[in-house]
Amino acid sequence: MDSFGDRLADAILSTGTPLCMGIDPHASMIPALFGDSSTPGSPQTLRAISDFSMACLAAAKGQVAAIKPQAAFFEAQGPEGVRILADLSRAAIAEGILVIMDAKRGDIGSTSTAYAAALIGHDAPFPSDALTVNPYLGLDTLEPFLERADACGAGLFILTRTSNPGAGTLQDLDVDGRPVYQHLAEALAPLAAARRGTSGWSSLGIVAGATWPEEAKTLRSLLPDAPFLVPGFGAQGAGASQALAGLNRQPEGWQGGLINSTRGLIFPKSAAGASSHAAWRDAVDDAVRASRGALANA
Amino acid sequence: MDSFGDRLADAILSTGTPLCMGIDPHASMIPALFGDSSTPGSPQTLRAISDFSMACLAAAKGQVAAIKPQAAFFEAQGPEGVRILADLSRAAIAEGILVIMDAKRGDIGSTSTAYAAALIGHDAPFPSDALTVNPYLGLDTLEPFLERADACGAGLFILTRTSNPGAGTLQDLDVDGRPVYQHLAEALAPLAAARRGTSGWSSLGIVAGATWPEEAKTLRSLLPDAPFLVPGFGAQGAGASQALAGLNRQPEGWQGGLINSTRGLIFPKSAAGASSHAAWRDAVDDAVRASRGALANA
Repeated sequence: MDSFGDRLADAILSTGTPLCMGIDPHASMIPALFGDSSTPGSPQTLRAISDFSMACLAAAKGQVAAIKPQAAFFEAQGPEGVRILADLSRAAIAEGILVIMDAKRGDIGSTSTAYAAALIGHDAPFPSDALTVNPYLGLDTLEPFLERADACGAGLFILTRTSNPGAGTLQDLDVDGRPVYQHLAEALAPLAAARRGTSGWSSLGIVAGATWPEEAKTLRSLLPDAPFLVPGFGAQGAGASQALAGLNRQPEGWQGGLINSTRGLIFPKSAAGASSHAAWRDAVDDAVRASRGALANA
Repeated sequence: MDSFGDRLADAILSTGTPLCMGIDPHASMIPALFGDSSTPGSPQTLRAISDFSMACLAAAKGQVAAIKPQAAFFEAQGPEGVRILADLSRAAIAEGILVIMDAKRGDIGSTSTAYAAALIGHDAPFPSDALTVNPYLGLDTLEPFLERADACGAGLFILTRTSNPGAGTLQDLDVDGRPVYQHLAEALAPLAAARRGTSGWSSLGIVAGATWPEEAKTLRSLLPDAPFLVPGFGAQGAGASQALAGLNRQPEGWQGGLINSTRGLIFPKSAAGASSHAAWRDAVDDAVRASRGALANA
């Protein structure tokens, strides 16, 4: 199997977009036509979450470069909820859709090894093509994740600069004239360079929030070959050109990362009251088309 | 229900120790007498992990102030693995044993809300008395965790200074003459003070690695009422007096946090080849007694 960096570059090229669909099945936001999802962990709620997630996957196929399921919303439904996460990811992989497992794990030593075994690679119990990882515990704690990812052609996205308003509490603290997140990016640069595929893109990427476009440009200069996973496009307030600040425009289109949208794609206003699955799907297809267009024309 | 800070102080007093038992069911380390645990996710492995974890819980009862299950080792076994985590935690709570859910979660906005719903409180699908949380995404991202914990009398332990050799990559970066982790502790201080119970101890604590005793003393001065969750005692190399550096000795014994030991308690060398469950339990009881004694006499 090609490296994650190369498979990501291929997926962006073949789907014609860097758009990534976040799949966050907020029980309270799932349209009524998928059934009653008001009781956490109930059979009805589990069915609604499963049906909704699989419907999102069907809409994603061929139209986005990857999906990004958010582990928290499955965990909130208990053990049967995470079974849906595993099933969703397995189904996506079987259809050739890249899965970015957004679980933001991070721990030390053998615990990181266990998380990596759980969440990285096509044969993991919670299968993925790449995992989001939190680096606060130190660079040594990334090693077990890198080892597992390298062994199975998978990737990592290291949380570097997030999209939330309070992201700066630690990430922006000034160290020798540069913020913490830049020091992190510098430390990651050789690890990313060592994992560059034939496409020129590494299997080691970072999370770089769309709400900070100037910072994305700085990060791109520090990490020329790392794919960026960019949250914050759409519902979190960033426009297409902001979101694309850290990507590279090439003759055949954007490259160098994924622009994630969640609510804008899977919970568009026009889908909230849909009276049929076909109407819901039309609304989601329209939302995906509009986001693809906004990115292509930015 | 009393606040977590008060319940923790009570548990330390009533068990006579700040010792916490880490429950990390490494499949490859579970003694053979619990059955074959070599195939991830197999029924045999799941049974071995379940029986082993429940045997650890039985040994913990009355002898340690809390248990700390490590989510990663359950996740590595897939959806049925995390069901064991939920069952273990529920059983502990039913027996009145405090559960520190060591999942090191952290995300933004509604995703943090979903993790909090999943992992905090006695009625969560993965029940706990307190959750470990990663603060790298910023103080605003702690709010949904605090809100849930406050609403159900639970606690949080915020990763501040971890016990691993490379912990300093980000935690030690120098900002205005002080390391990042001290800035974090200063930012947490008012949040901890606002959650102080009648015992004087807060429901908001921190993780403060035992391998850095001088730093634990500094952290204690910054956070006089926050319980410390101290990993690194025993197998990770810290002795009892190092581990206790951030706790307070009071006439009735230590207070102010939990000293966690995992391998030293649940995988003592003397238990590895135990030929019967009774022999295994004797070995674990001896290990618990020795650790209790080391802490009491430090």
